[in-house]
Amino acid sequence: MSDPAGQLSSDAYGDLKSRFRRAALIDDALGILGWDQATTMPEGSAPGRAEQMAVLSVMRHELIVDPAVPDAIARAKDDYSSAPADDWDRANLREMERAYSNAAAVPGALVEAAARANAVCELQWRQARADNDYAGLVPSLDEVLQLVREIASAKAEVLSLAPYDALLDGFEPGTRTARLDPLFDRLAGFLPDFVQTVLEHQRSRPEPVLPEGPFAISDQRELAMNLMQVLGFDFDSGRLDISHHPFCGGATGDVRITTRYNEADFTESLMGVLHETGHALYEIGLPAEWQFQPVGGALGMGIHESQSLLVEMQVSRSRPFLRFALPLMQSALGGKGPAWEVENLYRLYTRVAPGFIRVNADEATYPLHIILRYRLEQALLSGDLGLTDVPGAWNDGMTELLGITPPDDRLGCLQDVHWPSGAFGYFPTYTLGAMAAAQFYGAAQRDLPGLDDAIADGELGDFVAWLRTHVHGQGSSRTADELLTRATGEPLNPDVFLDHLKARYLEKS
Amino acid sequence: MSDPAGQLSSDAYGDLKSRFRRAALIDDALGILGWDQATTMPEGSAPGRAEQMAVLSVMRHELIVDPAVPDAIARAKDDYSSAPADDWDRANLREMERAYSNAAAVPGALVEAAARANAVCELQWRQARADNDYAGLVPSLDEVLQLVREIASAKAEVLSLAPYDALLDGFEPGTRTARLDPLFDRLAGFLPDFVQTVLEHQRSRPEPVLPEGPFAISDQRELAMNLMQVLGFDFDSGRLDISHHPFCGGATGDVRITTRYNEADFTESLMGVLHETGHALYEIGLPAEWQFQPVGGALGMGIHESQSLLVEMQVSRSRPFLRFALPLMQSALGGKGPAWEVENLYRLYTRVAPGFIRVNADEATYPLHIILRYRLEQALLSGDLGLTDVPGAWNDGMTELLGITPPDDRLGCLQDVHWPSGAFGYFPTYTLGAMAAAQFYGAAQRDLPGLDDAIADGELGDFVAWLRTHVHGQGSSRTADELLTRATGEPLNPDVFLDHLKARYLEKS
Repeated sequence: MSDPAGQLSSDAYGDLKSRFRRAALIDDALGILGWDQATTMPEGSAPGRAEQMAVLSVMRHELIVDPAVPDAIARAKDDYSSAPADDWDRANLREMERAYSNAAAVPGALVEAAARANAVCELQWRQARADNDYAGLVPSLDEVLQLVREIASAKAEVLSLAPYDALLDGFEPGTRTARLDPLFDRLAGFLPDFVQTVLEHQRSRPEPVLPEGPFAISDQRELAMNLMQVLGFDFDSGRLDISHHPFCGGATGDVRITTRYNEADFTESLMGVLHETGHALYEIGLPAEWQFQPVGGALGMGIHESQSLLVEMQVSRSRPFLRFALPLMQSALGGKGPAWEVENLYRLYTRVAPGFIRVNADEATYPLHIILRYRLEQALLSGDLGLTDVPGAWNDGMTELLGITPPDDRLGCLQDVHWPSGAFGYFPTYTLGAMAAAQFYGAAQRDLPGLDDAIADGELGDFVAWLRTHVHGQGSSRTADELLTRATGEPLNPDVFLDHLKARYLEKS
Repeated sequence: MSDPAGQLSSDAYGDLKSRFRRAALIDDALGILGWDQATTMPEGSAPGRAEQMAVLSVMRHELIVDPAVPDAIARAKDDYSSAPADDWDRANLREMERAYSNAAAVPGALVEAAARANAVCELQWRQARADNDYAGLVPSLDEVLQLVREIASAKAEVLSLAPYDALLDGFEPGTRTARLDPLFDRLAGFLPDFVQTVLEHQRSRPEPVLPEGPFAISDQRELAMNLMQVLGFDFDSGRLDISHHPFCGGATGDVRITTRYNEADFTESLMGVLHETGHALYEIGLPAEWQFQPVGGALGMGIHESQSLLVEMQVSRSRPFLRFALPLMQSALGGKGPAWEVENLYRLYTRVAPGFIRVNADEATYPLHIILRYRLEQALLSGDLGLTDVPGAWNDGMTELLGITPPDDRLGCLQDVHWPSGAFGYFPTYTLGAMAAAQFYGAAQRDLPGLDDAIADGELGDFVAWLRTHVHGQGSSRTADELLTRATGEPLNPDVFLDHLKARYLEKS
């Protein structure tokens, strides 16, 4: 466009790009500070680090909610109104608007009050969990919940959504309960009986044997780095370190994952590293030409989790991958004997066992943990469920969905940090990720004949390239359903995930 | 004050404090990012890190040069005009004004151009030094010098100083050539002959023997950490790590020093760690109640260097300290034999030997390296010396001051990163620090009878407390000369340093 208005709009868009570039680089700085906090920082430096991160977060927030932003967005949109729907600049503008709406919807004072209440409650939760004292946590958790309700209402009004949908949207854009309810109902209707069938099937097969350690941490680390490199992780622009809670963090071009090692059992840490590597590959594969712009960022927590579960559940816990990895494991860890056979490792890595703790759950029971939390957090937000009634409701739900009843709240409603830290609406993304992972993997198998053989040979290049084309390189240019539809031929379809579970866990061995 | 103007002014000061608090916390974030860059960051992540740090630096700069700042300072000063001269708020305001004047004096575009030119030249310098190719560096160095001249002129105009003084002031507030010239002339008049006398004296004593390695890095590190703790370093809010160029960095409440180890020779790294620990103690001892405010920061590079040289040169290279440290060295490193005697280590650690390289220089010849650079950089800035004439002028100066002539520019004018990185006016602070260190230490010895015995017992608590009272805890509330006068009874006096050199290097053994 060459008319004056167009010129103006282009300038407006250019200004927006500079502003959001700054915000992205502040995020990157926060990513490194957060990584350091979890891996390296001396304990006594925690208060100072909190201040540094708070100031950067506030400055980032101020950049986005500046009154100049909505004006510039309106002017830039005029200019791009005739652009094709899949134009990246147009998508970038849309993401800028999303970022502005979400940030501006909640008054700064409320954001601050919530951050403080969450920090206090998270700290108390650590103690309450150790003491199995849910009742002692309730006052603090109540304050968190009140503020979450205020935030949800504020967002709901601005975004014209129901309060819980407004929270969901913050973690996985476009997700609504109207869409989630039938998906989760389908899983809740199928999985409980399925799990019993799997358990019966499992009983007909040999019990897996855990390889006997100890396994030196340095050996485990070398093995992990080796497999990360097979998946395309580049240690010239990334790291593997140790932290209490494994995560994928760092910054653009500096992706850092963490794990924790157990000298008695290498299998858990190794799968944890491969999981985080899936997250890392997403970050590494984001479109370089849109670096530091909103459209160049990852789509949401659900799609992010789909990438980690793709690598962990679909690829790494498969026979072909274990066939490839076993000699590497043996050479790094020196293992011999019946525990070190592909079939044993495969049974170990695909064992189904209903348990109380979500983070230890297998692929088949995990969604049931999520569905329980999804139901309870909606009821908590609406007020249909009071905080004091959570332990009972939790245990009833566990009994109904998983057939087991937690003996105490430590193994029940006190296990997760999400609610104490104010993260309501986050849980569903785990299971959205699991379903999307199965669907992406099915499509990759169709598109890449001989994928299983390639994996068994440790040739992951074509597979990672496929992910880069269909997922990573798309950044936030499309919605999750658009991404899925273009990559797999249909929007999210839970049957693909269920078919995967049936094939994997009821196979004849 | 209770009149409306006073209210306004108080608000103005409060706003300034919030603003400078933000700036300080951005500095802290930059400190951690810089530490990570030097110790931890994968090499390929350098471009991204540069972007992150550039954005934080720009945002910090924008905070300080905001037009609201001078207005608020003027209003706040009205309110504090009747406060006592040693009032901390008044000093804080003065430091805010200093920060504003220095930052606002140089146009943003010039700051950016210089940052870019310095980065380019620094990179070329690494190669030029390796290739002994000074001529190849000249074009790039010329660009740096032109921009340094522009910056010096811009600062000179605003601060009403001569251009070189304006640069000096940025590294050590209040320092002027009119003050430095007689000090440095005194040293230049005394040291060349003195060094020859010392060399003669040294020949009458046994040659020191270097303890024979190898010394495992983990053992060296444990020894270093042990001695750091003796000096009061707290590893609950600080770290010791490895980097190519040792430094003291990190953030408020998170002070991180680095070293590099040589398995064949532990003595150099150990003294390097003790030097950086001196810097660290300054940072740790800054007034906690003025944390994140300008007046709560360290005074300048000269006083900072005085603290590292106090710990390294005055304390750690002394007989009492070596008497204390020797058994710890032996227990950590397993050393035995004649090299492991206090007198040998003392001779090793106080050996004078004129050499080409500044960073390897001993205490007696070091100021001569500085005086050479001080003279040349003034001539370069004024244009009296052309860049192509630097090698000749350098070698002439070395011959005149140290009696040795560098065989090539790698051992001559190419050795330091300062000029290629645009740091003109920095060098004098090293020798200001050495003189101040001697003066502080003399005063501490007067104030703390039995200090030598305490050091020999590894009891450094009273000494560090003395430093905290007289230096660290004063932050930037006074000028360097005020600090020296209150602590030692007189402003900077080079004779104290020269007396120290005479006592140490001409003693009868």
